[in-house]
Amino acid sequence: MGLMSESLTQILIPVAALVGIGFSLVQWFLVSKVKVSSGIGLENGYKDRLIEEDEQEEGIDSDEAVAKCAEIQNAISVGATSFLFTQYKYLGIFMVVFGGIIFLFLGSVKGFSTKSEPCTYNKGNLCKPALANAIFSTIAFLLGSVTSVLSGFLGMKIATYANARTTLEARKGVGKAFITAFRSGAVMGFLLAANGLLVLYVSINLFKLYYGDDWEGLYESITGYGLGGSSMALFGRVGGGIYTKAADVGADLVGKVERNIPEDDPRNPAVIADNVGDNVGDIAGMGSDLFGSYAESSCAALFVASISSFGISHDFSAMSYPLIISSMGIVVCLITTLFATDLFEIKNVSEIEPTLKRQLLISTVLMTAGIAMVSFFALPSEFTIYNFGADKAVKNWHLFFCVSIGLWAGLVIGYTTEYYTSNAYSPVQDVADSCRTGAATNVIFGLALGYKSVIIPIFAIAVAIYVSFSLAAMYGIAVAALGMLSTIATGLAIDAYGPISDNAGGIAEMAGMSHSIRERTDALDAAGNTTAAIGKGFAIGSAALVSLALFGAFVSRAGIKTVDVLTPKVFIGLIVGAMLPYWFSAMTMKSVGSAALKMVEEVRRQFNTIPGLMEGRAKPDYATCVKISTDASLKEMIPPGALVLLSPLIAGTFFGVETLAGVLAGSLVSGVQVAISASNTGGAWDNAKKYIEAGASEHARSLGPKGSDAHKAAVIGDTVGDPLKDTSGPSLNILIKLMAVESLVFAPFFAAHGGLLFKWL
Amino acid sequence: MGLMSESLTQILIPVAALVGIGFSLVQWFLVSKVKVSSGIGLENGYKDRLIEEDEQEEGIDSDEAVAKCAEIQNAISVGATSFLFTQYKYLGIFMVVFGGIIFLFLGSVKGFSTKSEPCTYNKGNLCKPALANAIFSTIAFLLGSVTSVLSGFLGMKIATYANARTTLEARKGVGKAFITAFRSGAVMGFLLAANGLLVLYVSINLFKLYYGDDWEGLYESITGYGLGGSSMALFGRVGGGIYTKAADVGADLVGKVERNIPEDDPRNPAVIADNVGDNVGDIAGMGSDLFGSYAESSCAALFVASISSFGISHDFSAMSYPLIISSMGIVVCLITTLFATDLFEIKNVSEIEPTLKRQLLISTVLMTAGIAMVSFFALPSEFTIYNFGADKAVKNWHLFFCVSIGLWAGLVIGYTTEYYTSNAYSPVQDVADSCRTGAATNVIFGLALGYKSVIIPIFAIAVAIYVSFSLAAMYGIAVAALGMLSTIATGLAIDAYGPISDNAGGIAEMAGMSHSIRERTDALDAAGNTTAAIGKGFAIGSAALVSLALFGAFVSRAGIKTVDVLTPKVFIGLIVGAMLPYWFSAMTMKSVGSAALKMVEEVRRQFNTIPGLMEGRAKPDYATCVKISTDASLKEMIPPGALVLLSPLIAGTFFGVETLAGVLAGSLVSGVQVAISASNTGGAWDNAKKYIEAGASEHARSLGPKGSDAHKAAVIGDTVGDPLKDTSGPSLNILIKLMAVESLVFAPFFAAHGGLLFKWL
Repeated sequence: MGLMSESLTQILIPVAALVGIGFSLVQWFLVSKVKVSSGIGLENGYKDRLIEEDEQEEGIDSDEAVAKCAEIQNAISVGATSFLFTQYKYLGIFMVVFGGIIFLFLGSVKGFSTKSEPCTYNKGNLCKPALANAIFSTIAFLLGSVTSVLSGFLGMKIATYANARTTLEARKGVGKAFITAFRSGAVMGFLLAANGLLVLYVSINLFKLYYGDDWEGLYESITGYGLGGSSMALFGRVGGGIYTKAADVGADLVGKVERNIPEDDPRNPAVIADNVGDNVGDIAGMGSDLFGSYAESSCAALFVASISSFGISHDFSAMSYPLIISSMGIVVCLITTLFATDLFEIKNVSEIEPTLKRQLLISTVLMTAGIAMVSFFALPSEFTIYNFGADKAVKNWHLFFCVSIGLWAGLVIGYTTEYYTSNAYSPVQDVADSCRTGAATNVIFGLALGYKSVIIPIFAIAVAIYVSFSLAAMYGIAVAALGMLSTIATGLAIDAYGPISDNAGGIAEMAGMSHSIRERTDALDAAGNTTAAIGKGFAIGSAALVSLALFGAFVSRAGIKTVDVLTPKVFIGLIVGAMLPYWFSAMTMKSVGSAALKMVEEVRRQFNTIPGLMEGRAKPDYATCVKISTDASLKEMIPPGALVLLSPLIAGTFFGVETLAGVLAGSLVSGVQVAISASNTGGAWDNAKKYIEAGASEHARSLGPKGSDAHKAAVIGDTVGDPLKDTSGPSLNILIKLMAVESLVFAPFFAAHGGLLFKWL
Repeated sequence: MGLMSESLTQILIPVAALVGIGFSLVQWFLVSKVKVSSGIGLENGYKDRLIEEDEQEEGIDSDEAVAKCAEIQNAISVGATSFLFTQYKYLGIFMVVFGGIIFLFLGSVKGFSTKSEPCTYNKGNLCKPALANAIFSTIAFLLGSVTSVLSGFLGMKIATYANARTTLEARKGVGKAFITAFRSGAVMGFLLAANGLLVLYVSINLFKLYYGDDWEGLYESITGYGLGGSSMALFGRVGGGIYTKAADVGADLVGKVERNIPEDDPRNPAVIADNVGDNVGDIAGMGSDLFGSYAESSCAALFVASISSFGISHDFSAMSYPLIISSMGIVVCLITTLFATDLFEIKNVSEIEPTLKRQLLISTVLMTAGIAMVSFFALPSEFTIYNFGADKAVKNWHLFFCVSIGLWAGLVIGYTTEYYTSNAYSPVQDVADSCRTGAATNVIFGLALGYKSVIIPIFAIAVAIYVSFSLAAMYGIAVAALGMLSTIATGLAIDAYGPISDNAGGIAEMAGMSHSIRERTDALDAAGNTTAAIGKGFAIGSAALVSLALFGAFVSRAGIKTVDVLTPKVFIGLIVGAMLPYWFSAMTMKSVGSAALKMVEEVRRQFNTIPGLMEGRAKPDYATCVKISTDASLKEMIPPGALVLLSPLIAGTFFGVETLAGVLAGSLVSGVQVAISASNTGGAWDNAKKYIEAGASEHARSLGPKGSDAHKAAVIGDTVGDPLKDTSGPSLNILIKLMAVESLVFAPFFAAHGGLLFKWL
């Protein structure tokens, strides 16, 4: 037994979660002190004085501009809320149907019998019937789904609350604006991390009331929580991604390329849809995604632990090691946040990126110490871990290394991503330079950059896998993933900062704020592109580890001892699995392309038929564009979603668990490459364009200014990158996680009834 | 024992090879009947009358134009020959160095001992010493290298001999021109197939003089032949690919985009380099590539056979089954060729593609019957195949299914590729349509098309693998690969037809031939793009099967019983292996991009500094552009070559055979997707552009004509696709094959001394 008693564990976890929620509310309160009239619709006009003007620096950012900010903010918020509610209606139906499938499939494993069964791992004991697993897995699935949806929704709410506030704070200087954006990101980060932990903790304790000593069954059922989290995330990411990029691409193609008006110009009919998209795609989608990763890695670790010595000996504190790590993570991130918001203040545009990078470093260093503490106090000094049929002896400091290496691998991935996507370094500058010879070379160089950017992350992931795998088998992988996600609150804060700044810039442009304010929001935004790429890097890196952990858990639960590439069943799974990310990307990119074409037609139509629109005398019809994005994303999210959800079901049912194991391994090793290269390519193109626009160096000025041939070529690259970096790339990490967690949940069914095709032959 | 006696086998194989060579010479003779003055350099002027004009249709394609054709043909031929000779100097050095490495590594396995050893598989017998394996492997490597180089060189020679002849025949109609181009392709196809077979056959018989009854050692050494073939192919493909695309991209960026002059306009300084490139890249590179696949699949099959019952019982006819299949392939392709050249005549442009498609179908149907015959006569009705430590009982009709399924999978891949890259179908037309909204949507749709085009080929490969693997283990895979390659002569004929037609069109444009002739050559060329894509599809599909067969042979030779994904050593190999195609693509694409930038600068410089160039009064300096392409390709082919050749050596030496097995499986399943999507994307963009240019339908005309905005967008897509389809995509299949065959050759070394890192830890 470790040094921590069960009752201490039972206190510390919910306390940490509540502290996280409390901290997040404090941050929200601080953001709310920036005053903007809100809640007043477009039709109702607005109050005369919306902000205390004592610190207002520039005359031209008058009351009218401020009022305009409030109006736009409201339009974005209303649009985002209404989209999400529409989406949730579909997701509600999906939840009910898929919940039913889970119940039927798992219930059928033992023919819906209510008889207790001998346990699989804890030999000699009696475990609860398979029917209980079906019921509780379904409940856990629903809980995970709701929590995931909630995470995305709350994130969207705070982001649309903060965007105009960031714009207004930009009048006081870049530092104030940065803090507002960053604080708002922190609200989302902490809410999500704490919420995820709390719901999981409460669920375990409630499930325990029924399961009692049958931890094997308890933690098997809990895996449904991860499945719920990730399946919602899939639709959030894909739907949100299509929404935002259809609007963005459509707006850019007509606005920037044809009509030569700036980005976010209020005359562009697609501009509100574009800004709404940032919130539903990059914020709500990303929130659900990372919540899913967090839930899944916790579930994978808990499941493996339950069939290891912790579970057999009923050591609750050791069993809760993954939850305690996450609790410690909340505390560490809380301290880290203070460095950015209170201990230092940004005075200069050039300090933004270093500050964000420092946040990552601080949280990683502090967390390493935190992991050491948790590993020492919560774990017995020696124990055994289930390792595909055998037991592996593990020491507590082994787990310290497992978690830490995951954490540090995350930092390496984050920094590498920054190097390849920030315009402060040569890779992006080379891409910008290639715009000299036109869009074609820009695209060639950008694709090459994306391919190259996978090298270091893959080695980092490989080292993390090797070390944690060797030290503690699949449990090691699961806690390494948790390590990478332990600083999720900081990661999400940095990540959400990006779209908030993007929106802030959009609002400044649309409200007609002064040039110097737009420059500040542009600088925030450029840093935001990089941080968004870093966030995606984390999401992908953790997804790789999580999927591998889930894969291990699946293999254990399905009772497979080896996954031998030298058998035809496994190999065909491997090669088809490696193909799935391509199939999926083809669908999502084509969806964005088609939706963007519709958007282009609508925007062109408005410019051609609304008199005075181009001159700014008439208002465009924003609502139609919002509707196009909404309809497209809801319709087009179904086929890729079906691909991801049906593939494991088909592979498992018709080809059996070996082929399914191959599919999972193949999609993991292939998908991670496609995802990293897609999101970095897109980030690099975006920042190459911003590099030319900002003209901060001799070299950049030689390529610019806006409207030059090189800039036009850069805009084309940026547009191509949009679906890569915000739709197909980030959705892929959900693909690999979701297929793995789904296989894990359905493992008993596949093991009992799977492989129909080979049985027939 | 089968029905065929050893002596009959010993007669039939060389006879088939000689028939192939003879047929190829006949075709060459027929092509040579089209008269063009050749052998006269640019400086020496040219003869007055270069062609019998009895059938000349159009006055404006006068003597002068014909003379110009001869002049251009000569320039292209001289350029290509000189590049290849320069490249061969480097390759010669490489051959010596790498031959030395093979000798040293393999010799060191038993400390250069000259003592005979007990056999590994043929228990109880004595086999030749490891040193003999080192010596003969090195010799086989050199033989394979030389044959590969010869295949590429001869292909280039006939292609540069045929290009102007095709142009001149186009004056008589599209049918005549087609036959000339197709016959020339056939010369290359038959020479290569027959040559590869003959050299292999002779080598086996010569090696047998030393090895006698030690077939295990004999066929182990022969694997060096495949390594030689593929390593030359790598440099041929990469070097040639960089050469051709640097010139092509550079020529297009300045010529088509900036100066608005047509493709292949003689005023463009890079135009000769571009046409030379087609011959050194698409012809010589492709020839070496497919020869490599052929040599490797034969070697893999022979090696597995030698440790199966054929080898143990010394049944020479059964042992030679792979060679007899290839012999039958030559006969079948010979008959097939007559259908295109003699039995039918093309009268109309629209018949070109159907004719080429029919060739594939005819050869596949005939070959299926051929395989049945060979399987019945050459094989005993029952035998056993080595299956990773166990023996698998196999019947002769099992092998018939293995070979046939490979053959038919090839046809499926070919037809799928045609569907996705020909502008007769909706996928390419959709891409063309997306040009309406500019280059960005074109690129998005093109990438999506490429991703989508992997689905069916992967399923075809998966089915072929499952069936052949289940029926006859790794031997089944090897013969399935051979089945796909058995119609290589027809495949290559179709494939070489593409660049020859491309060159013919270039020559027509440069020589200022009449519009109707250029229309005919354009039609030949558009079909050629599709056939080139089909050829790449075959190359990739067969590479996938070949690599898997080599992988199996490597695993057998290294004495591994399982490659379990659930061990950390294997898994990190898998994920890093899946990354290698991206690293490789990043290198090759960046190389093309950088070389193209240099080319652009030079072309711009010439347009700016040579007075009268744009008006056609002055001649450009073609030689400098040729030099830029040459230098770039020779310099830039080294890093990707080193990556491919060093990865298995490093993985095997430092991480051991399990990790190396993971690397091979990972690069195989990932590389095949990247390769297919890259080459189909590029092919689709090229044909989308041609679709707009040709304006053959209402829809196409609404997008055109040349110079319209949609056409400009299409040109950008085409340019991006160039390095994808002609450099990185097709090189990737060599990557996966070469790493596998290298591992196979070095397997005894890795098994004896590998895994240093884990031994130290």
